[in-house]
Amino acid sequence: MLSVNDAIATLLREARPLVGRERVDLLDGLGRTLAEDVVAAIDVPPGDNSAMDGYALRHADWRGADTVLQLSQRVTAGSAPDPLQPGTAARIFTGAEIPAGADTVVMQENCEGEDAGVRILQLPAAGANIRRRGQDITTGQRVLTAGRRLRSQDLGLAASLGVAKISAYRRLKVAVLSTGDELVEPGETAGPGQIYNSNRFTMTGQLAAWGFDVVDLGIARDRPEAVREKMLRAAEESDVIVTSGGVSVGEEDHVKNVVASLGSLDLWRIAVKPGKPFAFGRVLDKPFIGLPGNPVSVFVTLLVVARPYLFACQGIAATRQQPLAAKSRFARKGTTREDYLRVRSTPGGLELFPNQSSGVLFSTCWGDGLVRQAAGKDIDEGDLVDYLPFAVFD
Amino acid sequence: MLSVNDAIATLLREARPLVGRERVDLLDGLGRTLAEDVVAAIDVPPGDNSAMDGYALRHADWRGADTVLQLSQRVTAGSAPDPLQPGTAARIFTGAEIPAGADTVVMQENCEGEDAGVRILQLPAAGANIRRRGQDITTGQRVLTAGRRLRSQDLGLAASLGVAKISAYRRLKVAVLSTGDELVEPGETAGPGQIYNSNRFTMTGQLAAWGFDVVDLGIARDRPEAVREKMLRAAEESDVIVTSGGVSVGEEDHVKNVVASLGSLDLWRIAVKPGKPFAFGRVLDKPFIGLPGNPVSVFVTLLVVARPYLFACQGIAATRQQPLAAKSRFARKGTTREDYLRVRSTPGGLELFPNQSSGVLFSTCWGDGLVRQAAGKDIDEGDLVDYLPFAVFD
Repeated sequence: MLSVNDAIATLLREARPLVGRERVDLLDGLGRTLAEDVVAAIDVPPGDNSAMDGYALRHADWRGADTVLQLSQRVTAGSAPDPLQPGTAARIFTGAEIPAGADTVVMQENCEGEDAGVRILQLPAAGANIRRRGQDITTGQRVLTAGRRLRSQDLGLAASLGVAKISAYRRLKVAVLSTGDELVEPGETAGPGQIYNSNRFTMTGQLAAWGFDVVDLGIARDRPEAVREKMLRAAEESDVIVTSGGVSVGEEDHVKNVVASLGSLDLWRIAVKPGKPFAFGRVLDKPFIGLPGNPVSVFVTLLVVARPYLFACQGIAATRQQPLAAKSRFARKGTTREDYLRVRSTPGGLELFPNQSSGVLFSTCWGDGLVRQAAGKDIDEGDLVDYLPFAVFD
Repeated sequence: MLSVNDAIATLLREARPLVGRERVDLLDGLGRTLAEDVVAAIDVPPGDNSAMDGYALRHADWRGADTVLQLSQRVTAGSAPDPLQPGTAARIFTGAEIPAGADTVVMQENCEGEDAGVRILQLPAAGANIRRRGQDITTGQRVLTAGRRLRSQDLGLAASLGVAKISAYRRLKVAVLSTGDELVEPGETAGPGQIYNSNRFTMTGQLAAWGFDVVDLGIARDRPEAVREKMLRAAEESDVIVTSGGVSVGEEDHVKNVVASLGSLDLWRIAVKPGKPFAFGRVLDKPFIGLPGNPVSVFVTLLVVARPYLFACQGIAATRQQPLAAKSRFARKGTTREDYLRVRSTPGGLELFPNQSSGVLFSTCWGDGLVRQAAGKDIDEGDLVDYLPFAVFD
């Protein structure tokens, strides 16, 4: 059996960005992947500005607590100041540009207004209360790098540099197909032996949450011509194809035959629980990922194994997630496979859902994350374990 | 000064769902908030089914290792089996319904095919390898409750119960407005003393990430009529109004006057860093939230203080986030306020961004989360601290 790490590494060796670039308005950039670095074309702040409401002056003009300086101008945020006349002070507000010639800002609490001007009661060190041009970002600095998936604060940062449009990778198109003759769609009536298709919803929902364009192909019935037609359509309309079900080694299934006949197919047995069977191949020239059929196996292998590959195909640089250390409130024997346990975070530590069967999707709704239990490694109550909140997969 | 907890509690006392309900296709349910519980109308699994590929039989029909049972039917997943004829076995596959009369499934590895039928080499206990009807979910069970924000696995669970449409709260409409005469939009040219407006992008991006409908009102210039017109438009077109800038106590600003004249306004000083000034009020009948003006203050108060209120207005039940315990790789003296530090998770623990100024938005892009440092509490290297990955605010 293949370890999870080896499976991911094998997939990543095959992965490369499968999508072109496009110019995108920064306002529409949320969740998009940068195709080019964002490099600062200006300094931030763009000029020296005041960190306080107060008075700007030349430090050398102060002659002790009796000094009264005439007010020569008033500088608000957004206005362009005149050079400071020698021997005078400028009223200034937070964020406003420092007039040329001024070298210090005195906070207003240390000043007294006078008819003739302002009395400086207490002088700070020369240069005080001034935020220097370029102290946060300097022209030419690479602030966001290609391959980054943009978050709200990244949009804010790009905007602060005057960037109105970015170069982003086009959204990856992912075709989704559920297989199985026992499946019926919600809203239809399930006859004896039939079950409702949940995998379609888990898969399309998760892929949409990742910002992909989902090509939803519904259910493929287990007839070779039907499967073949769906696969050809998937290859034509998408960049990557993801299916659930029908990839167990030895299982009779037309999906495997059709994929193999249209391209190539490797059946893997990954040492992971839930989710052992996993397929990787091609339909014509499009990558094909075959997830297992059980609802929890679909969810876990999509997050843990398929996600890094799909992210890499989208051009995203950071494809792996760092687990957090969290305290276990449960004990559990290790198994022969790496186990992804459904857990819930509580003030006292992580609770385990009592039924860890791969058929019980409810465990993933009850829980807020996964604990990664290494093969053969027992967990005792109070142990620090590898915790992966579902949120970190988003 | 108001503590962060008191500020949130005060806001939550004022909060209630501000939006009506609508029927939504389950396929479009991602990120939507349930307005009604999802109650199981069926058992899951809907009937007894096989946990294995193998043979279904009556346990009492076995007479030792020589027993050869005639094969009376073949049951695949999705097909409706006939009752099992006494003294025979049914070939059965994983997920397929157990024929009436059969009470045990023997895995195929413990059987041998014969011309006359199947030889059972090793008989498990009666009832083995059968997943019982309703063992995961029983009819009438409330599986997802009103107020839940739907994740991909929740969609899968609802689908598995045959649910095709859900009752969801309409998306909350949030108007966003930046204030300040010093602001110019990215793409324009910033003159002396002017800066690019980043808050608009941070705010609209984050609110969109939360699934709200954003009413983007751009920048309000500091003229009473201009502010008044924007505010009236915001009150008309949205459920909640969020602005940045101009809410410091004592600051001269038309936003405050206009809001007070059109409704009500409380100026708060929250004991939080970054982000002390915060305003809450009403414009006509619409709630008004005034965030501070500094870019990091906007980001932090939006996540920490405004988010619980906005989530409650959307009808979301879980509005607070549980911090995780993580190891610090830095030391830092406590201040007089609750401090939200920008940090990055590394295998050795949390690293601190060197410049924690509220003007340096780059710290939030560099980092992957916040450390909550209680007022007056020092952090030493190696301490376990309260860590809030940005992902948990999504």
